[in-house]
Amino acid sequence: MTTPLAPPRRVAAIGIGMGPQHLTLQAVAALRSVDVVLAFAKREGDPLLAVRRAICARHDVSLVVLDDPERDRSPGLDGPGYAAAVDAWHAARAAAWDAALDEHAGDVGVLVWGDPSLYDSTLRLLDRMDRPDRPLAVEVVPGISSLVLLAARHRLVLHDVGDPLHVTTARRLPEALAQGQRNVVVMLSRTVDLGGLGVDDWTIWWAANLGADGERAVAGRVGDVLPDIARARREADAVDGWVMDLYLLRGPA
Amino acid sequence: MTTPLAPPRRVAAIGIGMGPQHLTLQAVAALRSVDVVLAFAKREGDPLLAVRRAICARHDVSLVVLDDPERDRSPGLDGPGYAAAVDAWHAARAAAWDAALDEHAGDVGVLVWGDPSLYDSTLRLLDRMDRPDRPLAVEVVPGISSLVLLAARHRLVLHDVGDPLHVTTARRLPEALAQGQRNVVVMLSRTVDLGGLGVDDWTIWWAANLGADGERAVAGRVGDVLPDIARARREADAVDGWVMDLYLLRGPA
Repeated sequence: MTTPLAPPRRVAAIGIGMGPQHLTLQAVAALRSVDVVLAFAKREGDPLLAVRRAICARHDVSLVVLDDPERDRSPGLDGPGYAAAVDAWHAARAAAWDAALDEHAGDVGVLVWGDPSLYDSTLRLLDRMDRPDRPLAVEVVPGISSLVLLAARHRLVLHDVGDPLHVTTARRLPEALAQGQRNVVVMLSRTVDLGGLGVDDWTIWWAANLGADGERAVAGRVGDVLPDIARARREADAVDGWVMDLYLLRGPA
Repeated sequence: MTTPLAPPRRVAAIGIGMGPQHLTLQAVAALRSVDVVLAFAKREGDPLLAVRRAICARHDVSLVVLDDPERDRSPGLDGPGYAAAVDAWHAARAAAWDAALDEHAGDVGVLVWGDPSLYDSTLRLLDRMDRPDRPLAVEVVPGISSLVLLAARHRLVLHDVGDPLHVTTARRLPEALAQGQRNVVVMLSRTVDLGGLGVDDWTIWWAANLGADGERAVAGRVGDVLPDIARARREADAVDGWVMDLYLLRGPA
């Protein structure tokens, strides 16, 4: 006796860049093709939810808001319990999506900040939810990544002619510098803390909240502009109620 | 006596991804805001020009086609004359755009494959053309980069959790491997020649002509799939008349 195969549920993971203006025509078509969009919200009045709500309203698709499970941040980024805390949070998010898939019929969309391929857990969550009795047919619609938005804001090519580009996190920046990387994009920075790294004479191109009202950008010699960046970061937070920033660091020629 | 400042000419460098479906709503608005789009064509029937023509027709903006100056490819990628040959080609392209700016009044758009910030010379050309007597006001509209298209095609996150991503050219891949990079996107590959690099047990995710009729994708163990990639590359070329490919290489866990 074999169990009949369940037809796969279609889930579109749609990159939305940093807001409605960054949706591609393909993303608009994907959005209009689904029956419902699922979104997590951390709290009432979550400003990132407001952007998702505006996108769904504009393209006439209904939005279901799910409570984002609490994440245990006590282990810290380097603590021994970090991986386990992230894993538990992902499991709780996957369970919430699972329940929503059972509750809402039809094709589902999820809206991903930037693009699903860079420092985002959506695709890993969907992998985790794919089960033999309820398989998922996941479709990825590429979005404008914060990487290219940073470059556009500063009118930059991200590397010198033919040179490599290294993309990493603030936590692993020291390792990249030790390898001899001279051209590094740092994502998920939280704070811009470059003291003691020997990069005072390097150039930084920094931006926060790209595409939002609180958008700020600062560029210059690291040794000169760190206070400007700290101030701009506070301004972005004051305007938008959240901060997402990243920067390019380049060594002297 | 001072020369009166000329008002800057507005030039929008618009990332178009790999085709009409990848334009963002912001790119559509930018396209509709210019008076003319300038595009180089290498020859009659240039298939990449056909895509630009379709985009301009769809969004109702006029397109002016310029002969792309010949590039001296005799020095080869590693030859001593390479930098000079590229520089001469850029100078000739800038001169052709200069002449077109004199001939056509108003705001100008240029359509950039992928995004202007990654392995593209458009912004460097515009820098070169910016003169005190005819300043340019360059606006960059970000596009879907081939990096995220590759990831979308294979439904990939480009790196493991919290790990760095290294982006480089085929020519500099050996250097990246020697540094210990375990997660590398290779752009501008021309051929996929990985023999002798000790990566037979690595995984490769390869794609060509993303978004075009000849789109092909291959994934697997490097030691197994190189013949499949060579065949898929020939098929893409046969369908579209051109090949643009890239790949992600990842070391064993």
